[in-house]
Amino acid sequence: MEIEKTNRMNALFEFYATLLTEKQMHYIELYYAEDYSLAEIAETYDVTRQAVYDNIKRTEKVLESYETKLHMYSDYIVRDQIFSDLLTKYSEDTYLIGQITMLQSLEND
Amino acid sequence: MEIEKTNRMNALFEFYATLLTEKQMHYIELYYAEDYSLAEIAETYDVTRQAVYDNIKRTEKVLESYETKLHMYSDYIVRDQIFSDLLTKYSEDTYLIGQITMLQSLEND
Repeated sequence: MEIEKTNRMNALFEFYATLLTEKQMHYIELYYAEDYSLAEIAETYDVTRQAVYDNIKRTEKVLESYETKLHMYSDYIVRDQIFSDLLTKYSEDTYLIGQITMLQSLEND
Repeated sequence: MEIEKTNRMNALFEFYATLLTEKQMHYIELYYAEDYSLAEIAETYDVTRQAVYDNIKRTEKVLESYETKLHMYSDYIVRDQIFSDLLTKYSEDTYLIGQITMLQSLEND
């Protein structure tokens, strides 16, 4: 599996998992985060390999569509870069570091 | 109409409008942002007042459900408060002001 695709799907999943159905959530998580094969997922859920494949392809499109509409992941990347930069540049400024740390913690809730 | 409800619906609409259907988008925008009455919307779209009412009530639930799942608006409020605070506290620091301004511009895209 392509590593870039895997990383992107795992990232989009972090942001939009709550918008997926239970089944979409389980399949995509097993496939991309847990590195199950299609056959293993099919066996686990007692469905065909094709059904798992179709569901995962569809979920990938759904996740990309949410990103196009809401761009939570691309906004996060820009903010994360700026936060890292500020943490380095102002490492002596305890107050600012505290505020930036608070901003970062919002990204992971 | 309650002003707090109106403000909240307008705010949620800003964040999640792209996830609504065309019809949901139009009704909720006319009602909350343009201050149309239900009767005026019904007349504009040649449907019953009840149909407009039901659609708007449903869209309000949809918007609140997206906020529960994604909390883009509540995260924005926290960030916005911190950005304002930093802009005041570090108003002499051109570099930091530039970075904060960049962060703020992400909120309005």
